Amino acid sequence: MSVLTALLHTNRKRFKLARTTKELIKDRARFLGPNVATFYEEPVHIVRAEGVWLWDADGRKYLDCYNNVPHVGHCNPRVVDAICRQASTLNTHTRYLHDGILNYVEKLTATMAASLNTAILTCTGSEANDIALRMAEAVTGKRGIIATESTYHGNTSLVSQLSKSNVPSVGFGLDQYFRFVEAPDSYRNPDPDGKRFAQSVAAQIEAVEREGTGFAALVICPFFLNEGFPDNPDGWLIPTAEAVRKAGGILICDEVQSGFGRTGTHLWAHEKMGISPDILTLGKPMANGHPVGGVVANADIVAEFRKGYGYFNTFGGNPVSCAAAMAVLEELEGADLVNNAKTVGDYARGRLQRLKERHEMIGDVRGSGLIFGAELVLGRTTKEPASAFTDRVINEMRQRGIIHSKLGRHKNTLKIRPPMPFSVENADLLFDTLDDVLGQLTAHP
Amino acid sequence: MSVLTALLHTNRKRFKLARTTKELIKDRARFLGPNVATFYEEPVHIVRAEGVWLWDADGRKYLDCYNNVPHVGHCNPRVVDAICRQASTLNTHTRYLHDGILNYVEKLTATMAASLNTAILTCTGSEANDIALRMAEAVTGKRGIIATESTYHGNTSLVSQLSKSNVPSVGFGLDQYFRFVEAPDSYRNPDPDGKRFAQSVAAQIEAVEREGTGFAALVICPFFLNEGFPDNPDGWLIPTAEAVRKAGGILICDEVQSGFGRTGTHLWAHEKMGISPDILTLGKPMANGHPVGGVVANADIVAEFRKGYGYFNTFGGNPVSCAAAMAVLEELEGADLVNNAKTVGDYARGRLQRLKERHEMIGDVRGSGLIFGAELVLGRTTKEPASAFTDRVINEMRQRGIIHSKLGRHKNTLKIRPPMPFSVENADLLFDTLDDVLGQLTAHP
Repeated sequence: MSVLTALLHTNRKRFKLARTTKELIKDRARFLGPNVATFYEEPVHIVRAEGVWLWDADGRKYLDCYNNVPHVGHCNPRVVDAICRQASTLNTHTRYLHDGILNYVEKLTATMAASLNTAILTCTGSEANDIALRMAEAVTGKRGIIATESTYHGNTSLVSQLSKSNVPSVGFGLDQYFRFVEAPDSYRNPDPDGKRFAQSVAAQIEAVEREGTGFAALVICPFFLNEGFPDNPDGWLIPTAEAVRKAGGILICDEVQSGFGRTGTHLWAHEKMGISPDILTLGKPMANGHPVGGVVANADIVAEFRKGYGYFNTFGGNPVSCAAAMAVLEELEGADLVNNAKTVGDYARGRLQRLKERHEMIGDVRGSGLIFGAELVLGRTTKEPASAFTDRVINEMRQRGIIHSKLGRHKNTLKIRPPMPFSVENADLLFDTLDDVLGQLTAHP
Repeated sequence: MSVLTALLHTNRKRFKLARTTKELIKDRARFLGPNVATFYEEPVHIVRAEGVWLWDADGRKYLDCYNNVPHVGHCNPRVVDAICRQASTLNTHTRYLHDGILNYVEKLTATMAASLNTAILTCTGSEANDIALRMAEAVTGKRGIIATESTYHGNTSLVSQLSKSNVPSVGFGLDQYFRFVEAPDSYRNPDPDGKRFAQSVAAQIEAVEREGTGFAALVICPFFLNEGFPDNPDGWLIPTAEAVRKAGGILICDEVQSGFGRTGTHLWAHEKMGISPDILTLGKPMANGHPVGGVVANADIVAEFRKGYGYFNTFGGNPVSCAAAMAVLEELEGADLVNNAKTVGDYARGRLQRLKERHEMIGDVRGSGLIFGAELVLGRTTKEPASAFTDRVINEMRQRGIIHSKLGRHKNTLKIRPPMPFSVENADLLFDTLDDVLGQLTAHP
């Protein structure tokens, strides 16, 4: 018997082709540890996907209104082909010369303002944000980071500190450098020109300067996706960007969720909000699920970061990752998916507005392009969040074959964020079902 | 013209199918920033690879004696098939139930001691080490981390502090928690039973405890790969593990390089060194270049880390990553590659020993399995490192179609770390060429 056969002594017969749901849940706890969350009261066991559709182990079909990672559709043939072709040709690191990474960064940065001309490719959005914060420290010589209070920017020791709503119990004391401002809330606390938000940022800048930490950067998702995508008009972030620049700080836009045309009107949400960040971070949809993230900034900022620190990422920017990411850009272009996001998004919000006329629980309808949803409330006057009810809606929708979720500070906003090929027909199925579910759950509270 | 066509205004005709070397170097600086290092005085432009072979844009063939990421061979058909099959079926996150991650973690942990029974999958070794350090903080309530002084454990803000030889100029003050011990050096400063190394670790433990930081963890590559893979006998780390345990600290083995059978005698180098770590981190070869990393630990440690912090990694443990990683384990087993590493590694060290008889520059021959090399010196008595000469050797070998590199504290150790299917014939080509190059460069210094 070979050394390895002896070492790999697992009896293959123990692997079932597919575990039952109960066995899957048990084995998750056994192999991945306790408290590893799943979605839904009755978790789904998805085995196959295509476009905007998911199938579970029993052959049941679900409409995917949630997943923004398979941006150009689950198992998109152009992306799959690109991955297969490159994986069978060459997959190596960036210490060798290769056209793939250069073609991709050229095409990517050509879609942005001239100042965003240089990129570092990583494997995750977390890695990208981790670099962005260090770039800000390198450029400003300071460490104070300001973010909004209910957001998420990743899972490394450093960037997990940005998530006040999921604050780590450990983290090497890094919390000392982070300060938070309230996220905008167009429904409960309107700030139509963004001046109040800019003032709250300015106040935190003053506080970190006064304390001696010094102000390094503001990090925001320009569309505040995790915080309920408030209905801010185009150009809303201009006063905030001015406050950051006036203080000599760095403006980091995390477009891991809002980028690549999600909002329908612009490829990048920071353009929609009227600003140009110093540093832009990217992730999730970048390569349709292949692990790719990136940081885009001016060459001067990248040089300052690299000065005295030879950042290298073994897998980052490898030929397969770049082929997958390039295929996503090509598919967005070829299938005209940003326009589709606008058209279908407009239609979907129209249907949601009409549902609002029929259902008292719908307090507010918001969104742009293929990020949209409704805030569910116990009363339109009190605007009291219907958080528990929202949970019931999501679970009932899942039972009826529609996959979506919730978000926002009160976890009462329906989070609808489907793959970009989502169609008017898909929206009809979603809202016909939602209409029915809201009616049923309101009748039987 | 559609929104996206307008936005993606790059003229496709500008993309050349393949840039010249000069253009590639220019465009790297333009798109990736200045000071992004390449290997070799004349960088290689690799466009295709298979098994242990690389081809450049001019059709020239190179023997790959360097790359440990394509562990089971470049473009290994089993791995490529697994990626293509799964990428065209389903690629989603771990909030849904899926067999892939459970089958993989079951098979992986079955190769380890019973205490290493739970895993968190990530996209990079850096992410894995970043988690490992936080696990140590969570379990011990302390933050003092000890490492060897010329190593590398990754690129996040936190783990980049572990690399004293490439110390970042920025990093949110995290350097305060890190202390270093001298790496073992079997050639210049023998420590045959590992007791002196254990004492130096104990001294640093005492120092961090005295300072009030407290001792959290020792992080080491059990084969000290980056530091010149000293010739330590099996069981050498036992006294060190005892010192760590006595102090109530956590022992982290970073097997990103030494794992998955690289040393030929064991699947895991920590077993070779006679110890069982509390936390094991994995990366590079794990999925043959597909971005996968992981942390393996006891369920109690994982639970302690997750308590109050819902770590989630969007791409980590996705079905495609797990299919690729599973195919690597299956290929190691099916092609008996750990035994191959032992057989070919033994043969290679034998040939290197014979070269030592012919070439005065070879001061010491070391290694195990398919990590081996020789330390080049200016004189066998003085043992003065021939660092500049080593550079010349590597560049001349590259000109002759052999790809390898250097490492160690003095950058004078030939670093030979080929894909695991490396054969006796490959070793002959490598050493016939090295014999010739050493002769030529010694004659014309």
